[in-house]
Amino acid sequence: MTFNRELVTEIFERAAFIRNLGIVLTCCEAGICDSELHMQTPLQQQHGFLHAAVITAMADHTAGAAGATLVQSGQDVITVEFKVSFLRPAVGPLFECHGRVLRAGKDLIFTEADVVGRAQREAPAKVLAKFCGTLKIIPHGS
Amino acid sequence: MTFNRELVTEIFERAAFIRNLGIVLTCCEAGICDSELHMQTPLQQQHGFLHAAVITAMADHTAGAAGATLVQSGQDVITVEFKVSFLRPAVGPLFECHGRVLRAGKDLIFTEADVVGRAQREAPAKVLAKFCGTLKIIPHGS
Amino acid sequence: MTFNRELVTEIFERAAFIRNLGIVLTCCEAGICDSELHMQTPLQQQHGFLHAAVITAMADHTAGAAGATLVQSGQDVITVEFKVSFLRPAVGPLFECHGRVLRAGKDLIFTEADVVGRAQREAPAKVLAKFCGTLKIIPHGS
Amino acid sequence: MTFNRELVTEIFERAAFIRNLGIVLTCCEAGICDSELHMQTPLQQQHGFLHAAVITAMADHTAGAAGATLVQSGQDVITVEFKVSFLRPAVGPLFECHGRVLRAGKDLIFTEADVVGRAQREAPAKVLAKFCGTLKIIPHGS
Repeated sequence: MTFNRELVTEIFERAAFIRNLGIVLTCCEAGICDSELHMQTPLQQQHGFLHAAVITAMADHTAGAAGATLVQSGQDVITVEFKVSFLRPAVGPLFECHGRVLRAGKDLIFTEADVVGRAQREAPAKVLAKFCGTLKIIPHGS
Repeated sequence: MTFNRELVTEIFERAAFIRNLGIVLTCCEAGICDSELHMQTPLQQQHGFLHAAVITAMADHTAGAAGATLVQSGQDVITVEFKVSFLRPAVGPLFECHGRVLRAGKDLIFTEADVVGRAQREAPAKVLAKFCGTLKIIPHGS
Repeated sequence: MTFNRELVTEIFERAAFIRNLGIVLTCCEAGICDSELHMQTPLQQQHGFLHAAVITAMADHTAGAAGATLVQSGQDVITVEFKVSFLRPAVGPLFECHGRVLRAGKDLIFTEADVVGRAQREAPAKVLAKFCGTLKIIPHGS
Repeated sequence: MTFNRELVTEIFERAAFIRNLGIVLTCCEAGICDSELHMQTPLQQQHGFLHAAVITAMADHTAGAAGATLVQSGQDVITVEFKVSFLRPAVGPLFECHGRVLRAGKDLIFTEADVVGRAQREAPAKVLAKFCGTLKIIPHGS
């Protein structure tokens, strides 16, 4: 199955704000995207955990990219709304986000994402945050 | 009425991530906090609007600070969950956030916040985002 | 300002499930709707409070009706998603819901609603629940 | 692993409002609960689909029961807040809900639930709604 890989890449690269956080796309299939982030001191909140706004940014972009895989050429997606639940203190130092599409409609796409933390690659993962959101399909460049 | 002003100030200053965004506390009363932010290029998404993650960070901190005004000395607040609805493209260049407590219980605090944009101070405000969240009261320093 | 009063009335009358709960439309202007409900034993949860599902139904319909005031003839609204926060035990026995539109776009409408309880009419109101939702505008009859 | 089966059963039976809807507990393990509901005309909205408030009630109770499996004797759970996304028109006539605990903390439990519809048992399932919620652990009988 082919999908809009160009739009997905663009989503992770076009916004300076996101690019500067260090969030990297690691996997992408139709309706699914994964990303990764390594802890850095400027991304911490006062207790040394990953800041909730960074977790949210990671989930929003990864879920948005999962949605973007399913739109047609000439289309783009924007975030309508999301909810994030913070399940545990965001200890890493390796963070992974798994985003997926729950339902892609004609004009709206429903997504979810988990953000997990690991002590190191292949170490057991703890779910840190759960994201549920809604995207709207818009013409690209609008 | 007195309130925990020290904790409120701390919330806006202790996290490098937030401090670096340029969000400034402008007003604070029992159960209410306001903040302000001026647009900067690194905070923009691809269309030149304020990035959703920055809007979320602003709302989360301002609502959290509103909640913090109502806790006792030796207590702190953490974010349990929030929902953000993005009503309009975040054109500024001046952004204001008004956070307030809907209900302060013994262990949970419910908050809401609006983020508005203005062309300049005293210009008409447009509501850009609506935030609803839940805080948990924890011992300070935990 | 005129608005789609017919659709609002229809929203409160067309669904047997809602009509049977006893929720009554009390006020309606462009972008605003109020409703009322009196406690009845079959609507209670195990502690004698109004059941969360009834609170949700009341808020969803009242906010939906507020949205419906702003759509054009031949259009209807459906609920895309909502979040409800339960602030206090739902003691009444009189419940009122105030729904309003935060932003009406071309294809989506953002709403909020409060559900309050009173010991009797004109008695002080306590906010019991806060609702934030998204409606989609669809062709009527679809 | 043992769990609080008594509390789970009680959750499905104690509230007249829920019992009357016809929602039946079908499966229950530590951290997981499933329920079932057959379409009935009084549960429909105006287009003949299952009413959003019924979907919400089903998800809230099933997720709540999943949370209840993990609390100790003498404890109970109440709903703090939830978000529900309505992915598709709720065609059944058989509806199933799968609720599970994402994270059980000392005083809060995070849950999610899917509501799916089937033409008949063993027929393919379509996801109709996605629920994410927060429960608070309280003393039983409070």
